[in-house]
Amino acid sequence: MSKHLPDHKTDFSNWYTQVVNRAGLAEYGPVKGTMVICPYGFELWDNIKNVFDKMIKSTGHINAYFPLFIPKSFLIKEAEHVEGFAKECAVVTHTKLKSDDKYGIIVDPESKLEEEIIIRPTSETVIWSMYKKWIQSYRDLPILINQWANVVRWEMRTRLFLRTSEFLWQEGHTAHATAEEAQKETLDILEFYRILAEDYLAIPVISGLKTESEKFAGADKTYCIEAMMGDKRALQAGTSHNLGQNFAKAFNVTFQTKDNKEEFVWATSWGISTRLIGAVVLTHGDQKGLRLPPRIAPIQVIVIPIFKSKKQKVEVKEYLDLIISNLKKSAIRISVDWSDNSPGFKYNEWEMKGVPLRMEIGPRDIQSNNVVLVRRDNSEKQILDKKDLVKKIPSLLNDIQMGLFKQAQKFQKENIYKVINYDRFKSIIKKGGFIRCGWDGTEKTEKKVKEETKATIRCIPFNEKPSGMTCIFSGNPAKHEVIYAKAY
Amino acid sequence: MSKHLPDHKTDFSNWYTQVVNRAGLAEYGPVKGTMVICPYGFELWDNIKNVFDKMIKSTGHINAYFPLFIPKSFLIKEAEHVEGFAKECAVVTHTKLKSDDKYGIIVDPESKLEEEIIIRPTSETVIWSMYKKWIQSYRDLPILINQWANVVRWEMRTRLFLRTSEFLWQEGHTAHATAEEAQKETLDILEFYRILAEDYLAIPVISGLKTESEKFAGADKTYCIEAMMGDKRALQAGTSHNLGQNFAKAFNVTFQTKDNKEEFVWATSWGISTRLIGAVVLTHGDQKGLRLPPRIAPIQVIVIPIFKSKKQKVEVKEYLDLIISNLKKSAIRISVDWSDNSPGFKYNEWEMKGVPLRMEIGPRDIQSNNVVLVRRDNSEKQILDKKDLVKKIPSLLNDIQMGLFKQAQKFQKENIYKVINYDRFKSIIKKGGFIRCGWDGTEKTEKKVKEETKATIRCIPFNEKPSGMTCIFSGNPAKHEVIYAKAY
Repeated sequence: MSKHLPDHKTDFSNWYTQVVNRAGLAEYGPVKGTMVICPYGFELWDNIKNVFDKMIKSTGHINAYFPLFIPKSFLIKEAEHVEGFAKECAVVTHTKLKSDDKYGIIVDPESKLEEEIIIRPTSETVIWSMYKKWIQSYRDLPILINQWANVVRWEMRTRLFLRTSEFLWQEGHTAHATAEEAQKETLDILEFYRILAEDYLAIPVISGLKTESEKFAGADKTYCIEAMMGDKRALQAGTSHNLGQNFAKAFNVTFQTKDNKEEFVWATSWGISTRLIGAVVLTHGDQKGLRLPPRIAPIQVIVIPIFKSKKQKVEVKEYLDLIISNLKKSAIRISVDWSDNSPGFKYNEWEMKGVPLRMEIGPRDIQSNNVVLVRRDNSEKQILDKKDLVKKIPSLLNDIQMGLFKQAQKFQKENIYKVINYDRFKSIIKKGGFIRCGWDGTEKTEKKVKEETKATIRCIPFNEKPSGMTCIFSGNPAKHEVIYAKAY
Repeated sequence: MSKHLPDHKTDFSNWYTQVVNRAGLAEYGPVKGTMVICPYGFELWDNIKNVFDKMIKSTGHINAYFPLFIPKSFLIKEAEHVEGFAKECAVVTHTKLKSDDKYGIIVDPESKLEEEIIIRPTSETVIWSMYKKWIQSYRDLPILINQWANVVRWEMRTRLFLRTSEFLWQEGHTAHATAEEAQKETLDILEFYRILAEDYLAIPVISGLKTESEKFAGADKTYCIEAMMGDKRALQAGTSHNLGQNFAKAFNVTFQTKDNKEEFVWATSWGISTRLIGAVVLTHGDQKGLRLPPRIAPIQVIVIPIFKSKKQKVEVKEYLDLIISNLKKSAIRISVDWSDNSPGFKYNEWEMKGVPLRMEIGPRDIQSNNVVLVRRDNSEKQILDKKDLVKKIPSLLNDIQMGLFKQAQKFQKENIYKVINYDRFKSIIKKGGFIRCGWDGTEKTEKKVKEETKATIRCIPFNEKPSGMTCIFSGNPAKHEVIYAKAY
């Protein structure tokens, strides 16, 4: 804990890696590109998971579990899906090890599978092969199923949480009787994602539509929430896809309508992943480490007891016990650091871990019936009367939650530029920021801009006003107003 | 729903498969031996999971997540582990698909991995490779980590929940400074498993020690809870292993003791899986289908509204609304079946799904301010005054919970035989049941008995009293009193 973090402004990438490690969020696993989610990081994920799980359950969604293994032949059924998406994947070819005199243990060549098995990169194909059995009539619709699962995409360049070969996520897969219903579902979920990001993770996002070239392979339309990270790059934080009838056609899933017709089923799918933890770090972190929004923080208040003698330690403990049990009754997630480390060491450690509030209690505080509180978001220190804690700590945590959001929102607003000149576009992209500008709607423009600047169209925001605008690149009339940025 | 189930007494195996399917618990997935856990089955698993998760968290355990992928070389490090256990597994050899003119999509031969990757059959090896980094001093101990995850063991003969290639489980992996502490942990967790099985799943179990030949490969000692299924066969419902220093030695994990010595770390691991759902079906199911213990049932009370006209439907609904909202406030999991099916159809369907209590409400009940309640465990019907429901339903559910346990316990007791004669042993094993008898402690006896009868030693029960007993097979003095049975 003694070593300083790399500079948050000038060495953002190394800063990120070290914060993730030193805050105890995650580490790389032994197989290249895999991730160990450490207890503190996992609790953070569990808190995020619980928020979203409640949201979808309140609207009639249910959880289920589908197999990790997908027959290779399934991936071929939706041609666009496999071409655009599912090629970098882990392939299982054998099912047995055996002893070998020379090498110890080898893969048994006789256990070779007739058809290779793919580890799910996403579950549309395996799920639609089941929906084929489950859907006959309009009475079987809608199906609103979600699963929390691990998925695998073989990645060459990996970064903890942002891009790893295996990650955890939720994937919703719904089936509907009408196109309208599927479209409504797609947008309802996107709104849940926005609420999760803004109201819980304190990350302001831009909701919008992906362009054809950026959409999910197999979808008719992909909607997304895009967030600005601390280095002004964009991070796609959640996507919701209207799959139209593509997977229903690939797996021949039809249903009998109320008026006895046979129709293909309409579908959506949508996902958020452990990537959101990366987004929290990249949005709120500072030179001291992580800053966690109270609503998802595993520990909301960390107590640092201060004492010099054994007698003082006993006094502090007694003083603390009642405070803590009262706060726990109010559902505050509070913890005490009784380790042998010095108070200074503890301050640094819990700042690194991003705990929203630090409570210091020593002999002097006991005498005056006070506690000292220090906010992680702005370092503000205040002294509170012990008897006010149950009332004031929840409102303080709320202030911190809002404070983090406002700070991120201010940063985002300051770094979105409305631009009409391509040279200025290029210079802003170079130094960092989002650009809001006109786009002529052609893939050619998208491609050229990407080649020249590495910026991509993050989304066509819902509140676009393209009329009268021209394309930043071609100068032709703009078809859409879009958000350009370099992205994670 | 119209077709009867196969006979519960004479065709138990087919009965099981159909109950699992028709109750909506699970189905086979497209890859042989994989399982789709349907929403109703998954909610059951979630309820079981939440009970156990609370138990371990209350004793300082924390959740984390380790990678699905294990380098082949890791499995070789603990020789006994791979020899005895980890050979039937899914092996990843390639990481890419590519287009092919002739076959559409093929595995790209150029993506072959240098070292094959094993899909975790259990995570000791990958976790101990991390503990090597995390443990230096006694201050880092104990580590009390658990993970909820999917694991894969390649199985040729599969049965839903009982034996599938992929299943869900929890695996606890703890690290301790002393042998005593590890032993205490092993037994504490076994006791949690017993409580989970008996007090929540209503399944009586026998706690004990596995013999050397039945223990987990890599463990010093394996403890288990063994349950008797409806066909009098045994099912291993949970295991807790004292791993001694085996994995610490394999991965060279040492720590500095308080008095500055270097010692290998002591370890435990322990697991329960979705197999428990199979145990619930096999223990409590009857000719009508599933019977679920109220404490883990996704739906505790199913309401069947009875009406003939639209007007009656409205009246029933109004009458119901207040009842339901009051019961929900008391945390009763209640649901109404408003589908178009007939009441008779609904009765059968919800009996199949094992909902503990059925509530029938029709126009006559409204007039008399009553509801009709029917218990799933014993088919008892009673009429209750509407205003007593909030008080009486929780106690009724408790009666059902106890009733199921007592019934299973009675069945278990009636089918455990104390036997001293090997012919009688053979005839009982043939017709079904557990045998409690003496064993001379030799592997030879175990093997011979297994060959001749297919029965195995399920465990050496904690309350054994071997003194004065002789071995059922060899006639030599008994070293242990053991439980023999044919097992799943």
